[in-house]
Formats: sequence, structure tokens, C-alpha cells
Amino acid sequence: MAINIDICSDLGEGFGRYKLANDDKMLDIVTSANLACGFHAGDPCTMKKMVELTFEKGIGVGAHPGFPDRVGFGRRNMDLSYEEIYTDVLYQIGALSGFLQAKGANLQHVIPHGQLGNMAQKNETYAEAIINAIYDFDPSLIVFVQPVTPCYLKTFAEKKEMKTATVIFADRAYNDDYSLVSRKIEGSVITDENVVVNRSLRMITKNKVTTITGKELTIKGDTLLLHGDTNGSMLLAKKIKETLIANGVNVAPLGKWL
Amino acid sequence: MAINIDICSDLGEGFGRYKLANDDKMLDIVTSANLACGFHAGDPCTMKKMVELTFEKGIGVGAHPGFPDRVGFGRRNMDLSYEEIYTDVLYQIGALSGFLQAKGANLQHVIPHGQLGNMAQKNETYAEAIINAIYDFDPSLIVFVQPVTPCYLKTFAEKKEMKTATVIFADRAYNDDYSLVSRKIEGSVITDENVVVNRSLRMITKNKVTTITGKELTIKGDTLLLHGDTNGSMLLAKKIKETLIANGVNVAPLGKWL
Amino acid sequence: MAINIDICSDLGEGFGRYKLANDDKMLDIVTSANLACGFHAGDPCTMKKMVELTFEKGIGVGAHPGFPDRVGFGRRNMDLSYEEIYTDVLYQIGALSGFLQAKGANLQHVIPHGQLGNMAQKNETYAEAIINAIYDFDPSLIVFVQPVTPCYLKTFAEKKEMKTATVIFADRAYNDDYSLVSRKIEGSVITDENVVVNRSLRMITKNKVTTITGKELTIKGDTLLLHGDTNGSMLLAKKIKETLIANGVNVAPLGKWL
Amino acid sequence: MAINIDICSDLGEGFGRYKLANDDKMLDIVTSANLACGFHAGDPCTMKKMVELTFEKGIGVGAHPGFPDRVGFGRRNMDLSYEEIYTDVLYQIGALSGFLQAKGANLQHVIPHGQLGNMAQKNETYAEAIINAIYDFDPSLIVFVQPVTPCYLKTFAEKKEMKTATVIFADRAYNDDYSLVSRKIEGSVITDENVVVNRSLRMITKNKVTTITGKELTIKGDTLLLHGDTNGSMLLAKKIKETLIANGVNVAPLGKWL
Repeated sequence: MAINIDICSDLGEGFGRYKLANDDKMLDIVTSANLACGFHAGDPCTMKKMVELTFEKGIGVGAHPGFPDRVGFGRRNMDLSYEEIYTDVLYQIGALSGFLQAKGANLQHVIPHGQLGNMAQKNETYAEAIINAIYDFDPSLIVFVQPVTPCYLKTFAEKKEMKTATVIFADRAYNDDYSLVSRKIEGSVITDENVVVNRSLRMITKNKVTTITGKELTIKGDTLLLHGDTNGSMLLAKKIKETLIANGVNVAPLGKWL
Repeated sequence: MAINIDICSDLGEGFGRYKLANDDKMLDIVTSANLACGFHAGDPCTMKKMVELTFEKGIGVGAHPGFPDRVGFGRRNMDLSYEEIYTDVLYQIGALSGFLQAKGANLQHVIPHGQLGNMAQKNETYAEAIINAIYDFDPSLIVFVQPVTPCYLKTFAEKKEMKTATVIFADRAYNDDYSLVSRKIEGSVITDENVVVNRSLRMITKNKVTTITGKELTIKGDTLLLHGDTNGSMLLAKKIKETLIANGVNVAPLGKWL
Repeated sequence: MAINIDICSDLGEGFGRYKLANDDKMLDIVTSANLACGFHAGDPCTMKKMVELTFEKGIGVGAHPGFPDRVGFGRRNMDLSYEEIYTDVLYQIGALSGFLQAKGANLQHVIPHGQLGNMAQKNETYAEAIINAIYDFDPSLIVFVQPVTPCYLKTFAEKKEMKTATVIFADRAYNDDYSLVSRKIEGSVITDENVVVNRSLRMITKNKVTTITGKELTIKGDTLLLHGDTNGSMLLAKKIKETLIANGVNVAPLGKWL
Repeated sequence: MAINIDICSDLGEGFGRYKLANDDKMLDIVTSANLACGFHAGDPCTMKKMVELTFEKGIGVGAHPGFPDRVGFGRRNMDLSYEEIYTDVLYQIGALSGFLQAKGANLQHVIPHGQLGNMAQKNETYAEAIINAIYDFDPSLIVFVQPVTPCYLKTFAEKKEMKTATVIFADRAYNDDYSLVSRKIEGSVITDENVVVNRSLRMITKNKVTTITGKELTIKGDTLLLHGDTNGSMLLAKKIKETLIANGVNVAPLGKWL
């Protein structure tokens, strides 16, 4: 039986006249798209365009809600209450779903963005608020989690018996506890393309990854997160996908096989 | 057979620490609520609270989308493209619907706010963009229109065979063409409470209204718009409702009888 | 020699159609005004109006910069860098000063708002960034500080040899370390009007205050912070001012005597 | 005596993580910079950085205030009152000036952005509000105007006896009335680099330009507006500057010679 993997990317993160990633080109590579919903990035015109393109290409759509902090791109921590997080997430999921509903399509997953995503792993209040918002909207949605422990987002998703998908990173080094090595530390981002490609293939086909300390960890990912903000990253993304396919991996949207 | 009327009000127009109307008290009077969706007013916490209260009280919920201009409260004209209006409206309807969906409830109607609402009557591009956004989201939604001619919002709603509901005003004087007398003109707002009550009753039970020039017009309203921003307006709203009921009118949400 | 005291209040905290305090009436009581600068609250029209009124009435004007979080009214902590705090504060001071410059007037003081103000006391990075922004704009500006230890805002202001003014609160209970008793604890806000008036008078004329544990502290305030968000608070503010004057205290803007 | 010309560009128009022009490289070409002030684009960190760089390089700084419409980049018309325009402009000028004051520098000029700039030419209310805001802030500031008739911004600036500087465009075709040919019309943007260079040189050294209809017009510009949003435009800008210098033109900030 073929191994399944989803390839996803954070897309639709422009705002008005501003653009970030090469959204159009990345949509030819990914099988799922994490779409910004207007708080940390994204605007209604961009959201509509991205939803239409994902629809045409059969790409799974995820909501990528963030903190209400556009100038900080949702990357600065904000001390919000349970109620504020619950409602900010529900508002953003609803807004994106409006565009999907207009196309007769459905949301596939939710992945909290930036600092909201980081807090979702380690803070119980944030995690519970996010899960309850997703669950109340649609309990069949897939929640993206990370393999670290604790990952409260996963804990609360499982309590509600919701589906989760584990995100793995192609070019980021892991610590021994499955957390990502901080970008401030040398070696946190793997730059050798061949290493990135082989490492991705090994994680997906062998379920193994070597940490920054040299330890071997078992890792089981459902979706591989790639970036498209530079031409180099896009070519690399393409190469990773081709290598996976050449090795018999079934690269397809999560919603089709999870 | 009893005459049916809906009573609605613009609610949930606070923002963060700011409040406008006595939302809680007005919810004991109205049968439908026009809820701000976060662009001209409203925020996720307020939207959730309002949706929960309308749910408890059996009140019909309408989306009240506005221009993306919070400091101007959506009252200043903005020159937007078809695409910008379509997506701004769809985004706002979707966001509000998220809160309804989380309660297992459905949206009843849409009424564009302020200057977006004014433009929806007289500008074909604005009207078509708004109607297409509503239709694409859910063709069974009721569109609030005014009895003026032309009212392009009505024209495009009818082209799509959507339900429309005519809004009538209790305390605003009409011109001979069914438009509202500008607030800059003396007599535009009727301040004598008894006149307002009797005028409302007459519009609803006799389908007649006297314009500012003294002309008699036939008027057939489906929903009576009331305000709750002062204690006086709230008491008046209560009195109007009681008078209608005492005269055998069936005051109930549009969704129940239209 | 008469004892001097300034009376200040947080004003101009409306936004667009929204109003908070009875700004106009409070301007007949205070001798200094802490004016919102557009980030947590305030908008250009409100700022101009407030500056004109303070100019007419001879009131000292302070900038009241806050976090870029309007929906949270600047009351939610945000994790910003030194550079972000420095530039957010400088931007806001400059914007308010534009309105003063247009009237031929000068800024008197700066008092950081809400959670930015709280952080300014206990976080060195925040305090240093705020002080450097104020100093670089105009080293003669007065910095409002609180009598707690540590108060890093005071530490950095003194390093730069800037003038500071100690804020005291009429109706808030103090802990033994001069910090304010948390609003979550009973007795944190003193509601008996006579107590508030006599306590204010005693702090100002005798430099003594009784803490929530009953301990006597020496306290030397330069400006008494009052609120104007309810009719009751406004009448109380008036009574406090009248009592101070009746007891020979010279109630005047800081800039005139500090 | 040498002919003087200023070269300017719209810079600092990024926002948070978003960037537009190659600001750093353009600062090696221009002699004046039109800096966004946070409404249509720009943020406090970007503003500080741009002000520091202009200071180091001896570049004249202009405020480039726009409509409060970030998602529309200030390019969509908004129907604002005199008071709203006056205060929006004054707020933005003050905010930018804060960064200049912190460096001991002064503002050189003001050029309204996008649709605010268009309206400033043809709408008397907008023009008067902008001029009064600039004048009240600092009557010695230079106002950028266009050679069209009427240009109400120029009319009101002259009434106040303020200095104006005429902006000319290197790569935009002119109509016979000195207005710019609409971008919707073929030939509106001149793409042949040699034509652009020679046309710029001729406008500046001979005060002549050929309109889109072939008519010869006399044109006297004080500042040549160039763009830096692509690598091509930047190379072209460099070539124009070098050609002007090679032909004996004195390319220097307006404030030095106007």
C-alpha cells in the first residue's frame, strides 16, 4: 500500500497591493493551502482569488487564523482571554468559509498562524479556545498539530475526538523533544538542498529524522510544510514533490485519505 | 387573517470597549436584528454575544455589512470596484454566519449598512455586487430593500428570484418618491411620539403614509426599523410594538411568515 | 507657601462615532489632560477638538500613547521589541504634537496608557524605549511615573535627567509597596465619596495614605488622576477639586510649577 | 547659472513585513523622499528607518499623507469632510515630523498621495483642507503641485503665500492641458528608456515637452518624480540622474535652492 503525504504551504498572505509568496506558482505544487483570513494577513479580494484557484486545482483548503495584528504579521505574542481567542478564530474561519461556500466547497483543516500557533501548543487556554471554536463550527475539520509534547492543541482536539494531522518541516532542524530548533541557533534552517530533499523523503518513507544533537527520532507526519517566498524555495519545493512521487509516495490532499 | 410585521434594529454596533445602542434591552423588543460584522462596527466578542442572545430569544438574524471604514462608521462614501464590494460583503456575511453555525442557527437576511446601503439603491455596480455575494453564499436569504424607485438592490434581487423585504421607518419623513427626507431638512425626523406611534400603525394596518408635502402614498412594509440608542427611543420602540399588538398585528420574525 | 497639585484625567478616548468620558465637562475640572493619540483610542478629529479646548482653557496637554490594539483598548499585553515600542511611542507623540503646533502650543507631559503603562514600570526594555522616544523628541517633557519600586520608567527618566511627576489615585487602594490593589480584590476601588475626598486631601496636604493592610505610608504626588466616565465620577471629581481649593491647595497645571 | 532640479520618489511605502520599492537603493539616487505616514502605507519602524537614512544621505524629506485606507493603498476615493481631511493630514504630518525632530531635522515638503492627491487638484474643499493643515503646522513647508489648470492645491497654497514646487513625470505622457494621460489609454506610460531619458533632459533643460497629441508645451518643473519598484525602473532612474548631471544640471534637494 502506498504511503500518503499531503504537501501544504502558507498562502494568500498578501494584503491589498502587497504580495508575499508566489501564490500562483505554489498552487501548482501543494495539495493543501493554509489561507490567511484577514487578521495577520490576507484581505477579501485575495481570499476569493485563492479559494477560486484551489477549487480549480483540487487543493484542500485550510483556515490559517492569526492574532489581530497586521503590522506585526501575527508574530508578536498577545495576551488574550479565552473568549477573545475563541471569537477571533471563529470569526476568521467563518469569513474564509464564506468564500468556500460560494463555490460549493468545504473547508478541510485549520492551522493557527505564527505566535497564535506557538501558544496553541504550550498554553492550555489558547489551545482549548481554538479547538472549541473549530469544533463548534464543524467537528469534522482536521486540526494541524506538531509532534512536540506537550501539544495542548492536540490534547484538546483528541478530547473532542477530532481528526488531527501532524505537520513536519522539510528544512527546519528538530530538537530531541520534537520541537523546532530556534531560528537564533546556527543550523536551525537546513540550507543544503540535497539534504532537505533526502531528509524529507526519509521522514515520509522511513519515519525517521536525525535531530540537531544527532539523535534518531521516529517521526510520523501527515503534511509536509513548504515555503514559496523565494524562487529558490519554490524550485526546492518542486524537487521535493517530484522526489516523493518518484519514490512511490502518494502526494494528495489530506481530506482524500486521512 | 392577521397582518404580519417584523420589527428590526441595527444592533451589535459597539467595538471593543465602546458601546452604542442598549443592545440588551432592544433585544426584548425586536423580532429581527441587523448585526454589524466587524467592518464599520462590531467585533468578534460582540458578534458572539449578540448571536447567543438572539438565539435564546428566537430573534431573526441579519448581516449588516458595511464599508471597511471604522473611524467613519461606514457613513462616508468609498469608491470601490465590483470585486471589492462583492468580497467585502461575502467576507462579512461569512464571518457572522460562523457564529450562527456554531449555535446551529441560520442567517435570515442581509441589509447593507450606511453609505453602502445608500449606494446599493442607486448604483448598479454596487447593487449587483452585493446581490451576487448574498446569492452565492445562500440564495434563500432575504434582502432588505427600500420602496424608492429605482432601487437597484431590489432589481438585482428580483432578477435572481430572491426574497426581498421592504423596510419602513417609524420616525422618518418620506418624500413623494418614497425616499427619506434628508436629515438636513427640517421635519425629516418626527419627534412627536404619538405621531410616530400612529403613523407606524397606519403604515402597517392601512398601508398609507403622508409625505412631507402632504401627499398620501400607498406603502407596504415588511419590517419596521426602530432605534435604541437613547432611553427615549427605546421606550418609544416598546410603545410602538405594544400598540401594534393591541391592534391585532402579528409581530414576528420575517423568516416565520415572509 | 501653598501646596501645588495638578489634576489630570484620561481624555479624548473616543473613536469616530464612539464616545467614552464626558470629555467636555471634565475639561472644566482638570488642569492637565492625558490625550489618546490614535492607537488604543482617539482619532484625528477628536484630537484636534481636544487640543483646541485645552488651549482655550489653559490646560496642560499630555500624550497618552498606547499599544496598537484598538479593539483591546490597549489593555492587553503585547510582546513588542525595543524598536517597535520606541517607534510606536514617537509616532504617537509626534501626531498629537502636530495639533498642538498648529495652535502654537507645546506638549507638557507623556503618560503611557494601559498595559504599555504597566509594562513601563516593570520591564526595562519597555521603559527604556519609551524614555528614549520621549527624550529624543523633547527632553524637557515631564514623564508621569508611579511611586512603586521598581519603576523602571522613573529609573530611565532620571538617568536622562528628565523631570518626572508622580501620579496618585483618588479612589484606588494602595498595597504596602505603593502598587495599586488589583481590581480583582475586594476593596480595590474606594466607593465611599467622603472617604475618597478626605483621602485625596490627606495625600496632598499631609503626604500620608493608609494602605489596604492598614499601614501608613508617606506619599508625595504631583498629579491626581480622576475619571469622568460616569456622572457620579464627574461630580466626585468636582467635589475633590473644590475641597482642595477650599483647603488652600493651589490646583494648577504641572507645567506652571513643577 | 546652472539649472536646478530635484529628483524625488515615493518611498517608505512598505507595511510591517511587506515591502514595495527598493527603498535603500532609491535613496542613493533621489535628492528628496516622499515618505508614507502610516495611513495608506508605512509604519512607525519603517518611518524611523527611512528618516535616519535620509538624514545620513542629506536627502530632503516630504510627508506623503494619504486616505485612511490601507487595503486600498489610498487609491480609492473617499468622501471626507473638510474637518476629516484637515485632521488626517495634520496627524500624518505630525507623526512623520516626530521622527525628524528626534534627529534634529526638519520636514522639507508635503505631497498628498494617490487619490487624496488627485482630489487635491480638482476639489476645492480637499485642497483648502490640505493647505490649511500644512500651513497651520509650518507655513514654510513646500507644497508639491502639478502643472494642470485648475490645480486648487496650488491656488490655495498661493493664497497663503506658501512655496510650491511643480512635479514633472519622466515616463508619463501629458495631455494638452498638462494633465497625465490616463493609464487606461495606450501610450500613457513611455517604455522606451532612451525616450524617457531624453524627454526628461529636454523638460528640464529646455522646458519643453511633446504631448500625446504631438503638441509642444512649455513646462517648468522643480522636481522629477521617479519610481523604484522594479530593478528596471531603478536602473532607468540612475541613468536619468547621470544624464542630467552630465549635461550640467545641478541635481539637489529643493530645500537647498527653491
